[in-house]
Amino acid sequence: MSFDSMWATLEQVGRHPGSGGYRRYAWTEEDAILREWFTGEAAARGLDLVEDRVGNQWAWWGDPDAAAEAGRAGVVVGSHLDSVPDGGAFDGPLGVISAFAAVDTLRAAGFVPDRPVAVVNFIDEEGARFGVACSGSRLLTGVLDATRALSLIDGDGVSMAEALARAGRRTDHLGPDPEALRRIGAFVELHVEQGRGLVDAEQAVAVASSIWPHGRWRLDLEGEANHAGTTRLDDRRDPMLALAEVITTARHAAHEHSCVATIGKVTVAPNAVNAIPSRVTAWLDARGPDESGVRAVVAEVATASGGVSEESWTNSTAFDPDLRDRLVSVLGGVPMLATGAGHDAGILAAAGIPTAMLFVRNPTGVSHSPAEHAERADCLAGVDALSKVIADLAGPDRL
Amino acid sequence: MSFDSMWATLEQVGRHPGSGGYRRYAWTEEDAILREWFTGEAAARGLDLVEDRVGNQWAWWGDPDAAAEAGRAGVVVGSHLDSVPDGGAFDGPLGVISAFAAVDTLRAAGFVPDRPVAVVNFIDEEGARFGVACSGSRLLTGVLDATRALSLIDGDGVSMAEALARAGRRTDHLGPDPEALRRIGAFVELHVEQGRGLVDAEQAVAVASSIWPHGRWRLDLEGEANHAGTTRLDDRRDPMLALAEVITTARHAAHEHSCVATIGKVTVAPNAVNAIPSRVTAWLDARGPDESGVRAVVAEVATASGGVSEESWTNSTAFDPDLRDRLVSVLGGVPMLATGAGHDAGILAAAGIPTAMLFVRNPTGVSHSPAEHAERADCLAGVDALSKVIADLAGPDRL
Repeated sequence: MSFDSMWATLEQVGRHPGSGGYRRYAWTEEDAILREWFTGEAAARGLDLVEDRVGNQWAWWGDPDAAAEAGRAGVVVGSHLDSVPDGGAFDGPLGVISAFAAVDTLRAAGFVPDRPVAVVNFIDEEGARFGVACSGSRLLTGVLDATRALSLIDGDGVSMAEALARAGRRTDHLGPDPEALRRIGAFVELHVEQGRGLVDAEQAVAVASSIWPHGRWRLDLEGEANHAGTTRLDDRRDPMLALAEVITTARHAAHEHSCVATIGKVTVAPNAVNAIPSRVTAWLDARGPDESGVRAVVAEVATASGGVSEESWTNSTAFDPDLRDRLVSVLGGVPMLATGAGHDAGILAAAGIPTAMLFVRNPTGVSHSPAEHAERADCLAGVDALSKVIADLAGPDRL
Repeated sequence: MSFDSMWATLEQVGRHPGSGGYRRYAWTEEDAILREWFTGEAAARGLDLVEDRVGNQWAWWGDPDAAAEAGRAGVVVGSHLDSVPDGGAFDGPLGVISAFAAVDTLRAAGFVPDRPVAVVNFIDEEGARFGVACSGSRLLTGVLDATRALSLIDGDGVSMAEALARAGRRTDHLGPDPEALRRIGAFVELHVEQGRGLVDAEQAVAVASSIWPHGRWRLDLEGEANHAGTTRLDDRRDPMLALAEVITTARHAAHEHSCVATIGKVTVAPNAVNAIPSRVTAWLDARGPDESGVRAVVAEVATASGGVSEESWTNSTAFDPDLRDRLVSVLGGVPMLATGAGHDAGILAAAGIPTAMLFVRNPTGVSHSPAEHAERADCLAGVDALSKVIADLAGPDRL
């Protein structure tokens, strides 16, 4: 149950032999194995496993309800275990493994918490299957409506409601869970950095300052299916030409407004070599330091594509300033970094829960890819930092 | 077994309720139903069903081997029953149904053929499943190597060898079938027109003059998977930008060289909203009146994409001039039309078999789409034309 042995176990689960990347999607067989692993790690440490109404898993050290009742709500650490398609090994699992390892470190040092401590595994952070990121924390906090979530459809036409049923789960009590939220006095998510800020700073660990505003938009580019060999160029309504325009516009607009914009997902119907497509659907992901810039990028793409449908939007999230400064102080002046990535921590912060994040150095900055990496020494520095943070927040007479 | 009742039966098979188009791919369940239908139509007419080594179905009226031996090889009419994804009802089936209906017309008129007549159903004309068009006639004539064909992979990772085995078929004798080819004295394929030549000419039926040279090329656009929110624009290797360039270049080059060029199929890996793709694969379909123009288009796209892989190439096919002129004469001076579409007839013509085609008017010119159409009266005019052609070619002392 050391960091290394937890890592060695998890890196077997959901790896695709072709790509070398991970395919761990919500409520699949791989996900069931990961949840079972979490349950086992909790049991091995004598932690009490609680599932909220959404299916997020919480492994509690101490009685969270009694403590919350007494005004001493718990300190929660953790992250998620799912992945993007062909994602890396670190995004998510590093935070969960480090959380268990930090608990082990504290126990080995004889630490006795003054308030409960939990390790959390949020379900479906990446939204790879149903298209909505952070659905576990969004449902928990009520930002995502349960009826809407249940009707989301995956790439095989399976709804979240069906997926839950197939996984043997109830669908009728999915929704906000104030009782689960009340147990959280503070949430700290450790995560591999997804850029090169720590490489530039020559540090192993940083504290997050804020999350950029970001969103996803769907672009439905309509055409007319026809034969690729017999239809004159002038008679064509080819939506692939609109796609080219959209891709180019998104990049130019992002550059102009100092944002990032990505067309990462495209589906073509009927997607046959010898047929002009009837429809191309593309998705735009856009983020930036300020909302006005992001909105300007989206407006330019909407003009090029004839309109966009907003699938999600998240305002800029500033993490709790007191908590953030306290982490920096406990960790001896580590750097603070803003990030363009969304996280469950951002959802909880927006819901008013004192929330912070720790980043661990990523030598290449690459993430959402099999090449995603962090050196073992930096991972252990992350566990050490997380242990110190828990000791501070859950120690006698603090928080 | 009238034209109308055959049509009513076939239009039930493989129709997708969502798109309204047909999904009839080689060696699938839908394909098995279509093959069973063909077998039944042959049996109902007392025709002898023969399958060649590839699985193409031949329904013979008369003994083809004895006749071929005596230097009186048969007259074959027919087409294919498979479809492109979400294709129309006419492309393929109209030729097979019209062939059976023409046999019925001739028998009702008391016609006794002087040489054998067959209706053929070529397997896998569209190449929708394994990516190679006309694989049935290409394997038959030896243009497509059996080993290569068996290793072709469909979108679910299933090889043609596996697909054949699942369909209960042998894979060890797939390959050229000179015996089957020797039985063909002439082949005439009736097909819905895939352009508006007959609309302009105000005629119901035309004879094909030639098929444009055409081919398919695969473009592997390589990038580096990375996080859509945290990777700076300057740090990206985003293959979607190359796709935009390729789409635009293909259209411009086609215009410049008086050809047609289409990017109709695109696959993206990992195809996640929040990941810069690691790879985009696109397919180029290019055709035109002359080879030099098509080659120039492909060269420009290759420059834009960093290279292309040729998946298929078919030279310009001139149909047998004597046979073509004889059809025009029998049908009383119908127009002749060139086409940009490939057909099994083109493969047989290239193999040196006297081959011709009849086109039936398509009011919109749309094909490879649920909107593909031909009026019933024009279809019946096609059957009438095909009957006259068979009577002429298989009548006493002709051909």
